[in-house]
Amino acid sequence: MDFEAYFQGELGALRDEGRYRVFADLERHRGGFPRATRHLEDGSTQDVTVWCSNDYLGMGQNPKVVDAMKAAIDQCGAGAGGTRNISGTNHSHVLLERELADLHGKQSALLFTSGYVSNWAALGTLASKLPGCIVFSDAGNHASMIEGIRHSRAEKVIWKHNNVRDLAARLAAADPRAPKIVAFESVYSMDGDIAPIREIVEVAERFGAMTYLDEVHAVGLYGPRGGGIAEREGLMDRITVIEGTLGKAIGVMGGYIAASEALCDFVRSFASGFIFTTALPPALAGGAVASIRHLKVSNEERLMQRDRVARLRSLLDRRGIPYMPNDSHIVPVMVGNAAKCKWISDLLLDHHGIYVQPINYPTVPRTTERLRITPTPFHSDADIDHLVGALHQLWSRCALSRAVA
Amino acid sequence: MDFEAYFQGELGALRDEGRYRVFADLERHRGGFPRATRHLEDGSTQDVTVWCSNDYLGMGQNPKVVDAMKAAIDQCGAGAGGTRNISGTNHSHVLLERELADLHGKQSALLFTSGYVSNWAALGTLASKLPGCIVFSDAGNHASMIEGIRHSRAEKVIWKHNNVRDLAARLAAADPRAPKIVAFESVYSMDGDIAPIREIVEVAERFGAMTYLDEVHAVGLYGPRGGGIAEREGLMDRITVIEGTLGKAIGVMGGYIAASEALCDFVRSFASGFIFTTALPPALAGGAVASIRHLKVSNEERLMQRDRVARLRSLLDRRGIPYMPNDSHIVPVMVGNAAKCKWISDLLLDHHGIYVQPINYPTVPRTTERLRITPTPFHSDADIDHLVGALHQLWSRCALSRAVA
Ligand SMILES: Cc1ncc(COP(=O)(O)O)c(C=O)c1O
Ligand SMILES: Cc1ncc(COP(=O)(O)O)c(C=O)c1O
Repeated sequence: MDFEAYFQGELGALRDEGRYRVFADLERHRGGFPRATRHLEDGSTQDVTVWCSNDYLGMGQNPKVVDAMKAAIDQCGAGAGGTRNISGTNHSHVLLERELADLHGKQSALLFTSGYVSNWAALGTLASKLPGCIVFSDAGNHASMIEGIRHSRAEKVIWKHNNVRDLAARLAAADPRAPKIVAFESVYSMDGDIAPIREIVEVAERFGAMTYLDEVHAVGLYGPRGGGIAEREGLMDRITVIEGTLGKAIGVMGGYIAASEALCDFVRSFASGFIFTTALPPALAGGAVASIRHLKVSNEERLMQRDRVARLRSLLDRRGIPYMPNDSHIVPVMVGNAAKCKWISDLLLDHHGIYVQPINYPTVPRTTERLRITPTPFHSDADIDHLVGALHQLWSRCALSRAVA
Repeated sequence: MDFEAYFQGELGALRDEGRYRVFADLERHRGGFPRATRHLEDGSTQDVTVWCSNDYLGMGQNPKVVDAMKAAIDQCGAGAGGTRNISGTNHSHVLLERELADLHGKQSALLFTSGYVSNWAALGTLASKLPGCIVFSDAGNHASMIEGIRHSRAEKVIWKHNNVRDLAARLAAADPRAPKIVAFESVYSMDGDIAPIREIVEVAERFGAMTYLDEVHAVGLYGPRGGGIAEREGLMDRITVIEGTLGKAIGVMGGYIAASEALCDFVRSFASGFIFTTALPPALAGGAVASIRHLKVSNEERLMQRDRVARLRSLLDRRGIPYMPNDSHIVPVMVGNAAKCKWISDLLLDHHGIYVQPINYPTVPRTTERLRITPTPFHSDADIDHLVGALHQLWSRCALSRAVA
């Protein structure tokens, strides 16, 4: 087989469909968030404002976080130097796991190198090791959960997105003796909609199923201490496993589960993706501890973010720019066409210094292509005015081109 | 199902088999490597010398690496703030990918969050996307490759460890039209033996198979610029994919593949484990660039490490302490019994301040339990004397207990 020709053919097909991805080459500026320098192919640079970061609260530049990371480097050096079992457990991992268990009101927490790996490894291990396990997976679940379930080779039942009746019907139809896991998210990142956690938990409890909740887009952002939607709803103790990331609102990198001591210890002992990989650098663990501690007591970032989100929505309303309504911090401005979405994004970037990555298939269904906008506490009134003004201009041009087409 | 009881039962079984893992809770000391502080359960601490780190060259405390990390934090902040596609590509990722492509003499390189994820995602994607692909996997391959191949659901043929005749026979027996991947490692981490890369490449070429080489335990350590065993043997251009980690000799964290532009672009475009996860923090990318650049021109660490390895072996020889011979930097001191291995390790730690994690089943086969010792440039003559003296004492006690048993 001519491998090169095969790869090139597949890449060509992506290009033809308008799905080939070109990454924006950025340089973030500590202290200047959400400002960044964009590096262009020709070697030149451009100043841009980032409007699609998942550093939702700007904690990636919070002085406490930055200082904690540098202090950890000064104290312990660069990497962990080994897997968790073979010399790689650093005291900061132990402290971070305690902090995370406390954040979610659980006995224990277990760190992974990313949120992706935490979902993949934890679901993959639980579903494969529990004999005869059936996983009930929300249709909107993230790739990392889907791959974990796939990896486990357990039976999988997909229930309609956020539809508790459908979940209940499917649970009722399954073998009552089989161990069951109900896997879902709190805030779904592309639509920004929020799961009816209480109803899901109640149904799961009725059928003796374990609940596995991905709070990746909620940790740090919701609940009095940033414990997520389950904290806000007072439901943390009724959820078996809460999974989260340290790479979004926490501002660093890494992932985790929080659950009972036995469950965490079980995953710790059997998950290949936990065991056979170098541990997180002490600097990341130290930075995450500082960020979580800050967000446990500070509401300022959360309130300011909500204020920015509300302002953006009201200005979009005034201009008649359509966005998907939801109860979260995510503002999906709907375009509904892959080429147009990419075109708007390119013009925003090239002519207005506004960076919002277009979200196309397969990340979202075709005809729901969008600009996923994430206002942070650090976007000023002027930034919002500038964004909405630019969108308004482009919407007019789109309408014009639509009118003559 | 009573989930808690089930987990506890499984953990109890591990304990009964002596396979339950307790992590040593360490605090590394920048500038004092391989010294660390061990935190004990009762809150007290102990000074220890680490003898099982995979920070093989002590690059985790190299001033250039540490300074580059801190500079990146000062400049860009803590995390990347997004996936590579959605605002998370930082200029330092682009520079690091160039540095890695250059290190391995390849057109391109692609970063992942860890070596584990790079193997899992790259092999998983290549093997699942190439229609009818058969993967020929060395019997000694690492868990991350095994899981990637398993995930792909491609046909898998396991060939005898480092046995080129067996590989050739299995390739010959397979459908000549099927696309084939030969997956193997250069330095196998537990035995420290080295693959006959040239012969493997020749056989693979004969059958038109792609070669996928994991150089995780060789990058930074072998070859004039630290490109690995394939660099040392002048074979980099004949290997399709070279995979490595930034978490061992490079001293930081992260993983990568280096290959043709089309192959890297293909994996970039299709690998779930690459696409749907937060990018590495700029500090890790910056630290890795500094480390790789240093190791491209400095032989000092490699020479000093070899000197330390040779000295340890000669002192072990003098005391008659058995270790597995090999041509690498890894010194597996053979114990051959799980309980005894753990006992020796515990005594080394508690009475001698020497930390070597016992390696038991399933990481190595039963009856080959061992202490896997990794001398670094920073282990002094006195450290080596102390280690061998302690081992000698314990070996005598073992012999004694054997004699009376
Ligand atoms: C719902 C969800 N879960 C998990 C992840 C993975 O987390 P991480 O970026 O830490 O790998 C993501 C996004 O990256 C996500 O959107
Ligand atoms: C041969 C081999 N490949 C891959 C890995 C994974 O690399 P990382 O630690 O960067 O995840 C390891 C060890 O951890 C390994 O020993």
